[in-house]
Amino acid sequence: MTEAWVTLATNDAYALGALVLAQSLRRAETTRKIHCLVTPGVSGGMREHMNSVFDAVTQVDILNSGDQENLQLIGRPDLGVTFTKLHCWRLTQYTRCVFLDADTLVLRNSDELFQREELSAAPDIGWPDIFNTGVFVFRPSLDTYRALLSVAISEGSFDGGDQGLLNTYFSDWREKDASFRLPFIFNMSSGAVYTYAAAYKKFGADVKIVHFLGSVKPWHHSFGPGGLRFDSGSTHQITHVSYWWRIFAEDLASKLKPEFYDSQWCPSGVRDAAHFAKNTDCFGQRPCTSTGDSKHRLFVSPAADDVACPPSPSSTSSNSETVTASETDYDSASHPNRGFRVQIESSAETDDQFDAAAASSSESAAAGVHSSPTPLAPFCPSVELPVHLRRLLHRDDS
Amino acid sequence: MTEAWVTLATNDAYALGALVLAQSLRRAETTRKIHCLVTPGVSGGMREHMNSVFDAVTQVDILNSGDQENLQLIGRPDLGVTFTKLHCWRLTQYTRCVFLDADTLVLRNSDELFQREELSAAPDIGWPDIFNTGVFVFRPSLDTYRALLSVAISEGSFDGGDQGLLNTYFSDWREKDASFRLPFIFNMSSGAVYTYAAAYKKFGADVKIVHFLGSVKPWHHSFGPGGLRFDSGSTHQITHVSYWWRIFAEDLASKLKPEFYDSQWCPSGVRDAAHFAKNTDCFGQRPCTSTGDSKHRLFVSPAADDVACPPSPSSTSSNSETVTASETDYDSASHPNRGFRVQIESSAETDDQFDAAAASSSESAAAGVHSSPTPLAPFCPSVELPVHLRRLLHRDDS
Repeated sequence: MTEAWVTLATNDAYALGALVLAQSLRRAETTRKIHCLVTPGVSGGMREHMNSVFDAVTQVDILNSGDQENLQLIGRPDLGVTFTKLHCWRLTQYTRCVFLDADTLVLRNSDELFQREELSAAPDIGWPDIFNTGVFVFRPSLDTYRALLSVAISEGSFDGGDQGLLNTYFSDWREKDASFRLPFIFNMSSGAVYTYAAAYKKFGADVKIVHFLGSVKPWHHSFGPGGLRFDSGSTHQITHVSYWWRIFAEDLASKLKPEFYDSQWCPSGVRDAAHFAKNTDCFGQRPCTSTGDSKHRLFVSPAADDVACPPSPSSTSSNSETVTASETDYDSASHPNRGFRVQIESSAETDDQFDAAAASSSESAAAGVHSSPTPLAPFCPSVELPVHLRRLLHRDDS
Repeated sequence: MTEAWVTLATNDAYALGALVLAQSLRRAETTRKIHCLVTPGVSGGMREHMNSVFDAVTQVDILNSGDQENLQLIGRPDLGVTFTKLHCWRLTQYTRCVFLDADTLVLRNSDELFQREELSAAPDIGWPDIFNTGVFVFRPSLDTYRALLSVAISEGSFDGGDQGLLNTYFSDWREKDASFRLPFIFNMSSGAVYTYAAAYKKFGADVKIVHFLGSVKPWHHSFGPGGLRFDSGSTHQITHVSYWWRIFAEDLASKLKPEFYDSQWCPSGVRDAAHFAKNTDCFGQRPCTSTGDSKHRLFVSPAADDVACPPSPSSTSSNSETVTASETDYDSASHPNRGFRVQIESSAETDDQFDAAAASSSESAAAGVHSSPTPLAPFCPSVELPVHLRRLLHRDDS
């Protein structure tokens, strides 16, 4: 009996997501295999690296729903390619699997999911009688694969993506007993943190898998003055994004090939970092400055032993005066490769203030007015990125 | 065995919502009693009118959670008063009840809910392991009432409102079988129409009860040039709001006492209409004009027999060229008091266009620039509001 986590990458950006996801599973000490499906869109260099991280990497063809009309309805024409996900049912070398989208991140060991039956999934927050297909338990089977393809061809997908198709095929999910309905903590949509903050405060400490829904992914945040800049328009929880970057910085950055940073699929955050590093010593030893136009700034610095682990939304950073109760440092004390921590500084106490500050900043910028730089200390001066990343950040692109 | 729908009003604005809700239940031909709990905040005049609409009206005391800290988390300090909802368990003259918030609206007969057991409810879209307390099946019981009060005192509510408390008390809801989990069509959060449009397109025709979540309620939309103006910032489905106003116009407007329109709780939409009517003949016989700053305009006009009924999101109005597929006229052909229909005109095809138009309009207004009036015909000239409402709209406030 072999069981596996399965994910899918269709280009190098999602491949990076898949790599961080795999490392998050390793940090959570999973006992199951980790398998990645890749389409021809993933570069050879990236695949080479993936082979060293995943237990198995398999190339599959792209299955595209080609249903542009339906995809327009949800504003995500890129989702058609997610039909490719159906290939996971062909992995019959495993008796049971859990599929994880490449934009999910495992915060704690979730191996208990392998006790569930096909098809177990969590409700989608858009229409909760539908399950979200970012995380689901399934049993590989060629019969099921063919049946799914048949439904795809005969009925299509009501939303143009795999979620509409799988909900059509497993349409009895809503009526089945509770064991098929995964607790939301196994597929917590990142936006839930803000739409129902009180529930997140109560249940957030139990979250095991976070799903970065929407078009902005963790790798779309960018480096700017002071460190990693959190996009104020994001619905993500800053600590979840910071944990993603921490894994990237510690486990992957130094191992990725230089060609990756030049490719079209290089996440903008990483490319921005490279660009920024050419014009400043901020990633070196000079104290950072800030234009004061961001609520949160994250700094990657050497880890300290006093950081709470596992993460809890009710804990606060001892080094940050205004971190809200729902923001937490993630620091995997048990991880042998540790050495960095992510420090969050919050400069506004409420979302309203934040929104007002962001709007004000935006207006100032439009009018050519900029705030005076504000020194931020003490974390930035001590930043020590992995040598390979520092070299990449400081290298000359010419 | 007596069964009842139960709702709650804590002031005259919510009392108006409760009245429209009750009429929507009558239009849907319910066979159950309709009971309203009112607090001392509801005026005597309004209560007098409620007695003629509800089968029973009972005054209850306000139970306030007083938990300002938790309420701040969800940004709704007004929700504390919803603890008052607990009084519904004291209605032991009924064997089984369905509670409906006063900001819900019944689109189709939902009497089948009385086949469910306590506590049946639909998932909340913010955190779907929690049930939403806008619609729930319960069994009145003084023992349960006392037990709920005990939990309220000893543990409080994690969100400061009744939803946090009831989810704490009925904490096994998520683990129970599917019969306790109401289909989302019995408590469809208005915002779901936009957050998952493809699901709404597929399942929207089946929706039976809509819930106008958020701080903007149907009665907060306003009258302007051309008729009822739909607030562009609203997450409501325009046809659901229009159905609410249709019921108000047909079943209630002429029966409400004049004092109501002067009270602090008079919904702004109605007061705006009164103000607007003093400065224009739009509600009379003169053709309407529009400044072109609104995507949708609704006109109340004599009903035609060709309007689709029951409402279906895939139907379109035969008199409106640009109504989108998800917008529908509601016209209860079986209702004896019919005589008006709501006409929707959509002047922009996509939300993006709409947002851009709204932004542009807002900027123009700020700069003192106004679009040229555009004639809108033929519905506005034929508007015939109930006589009592017309008199109110044209009367002199002095």
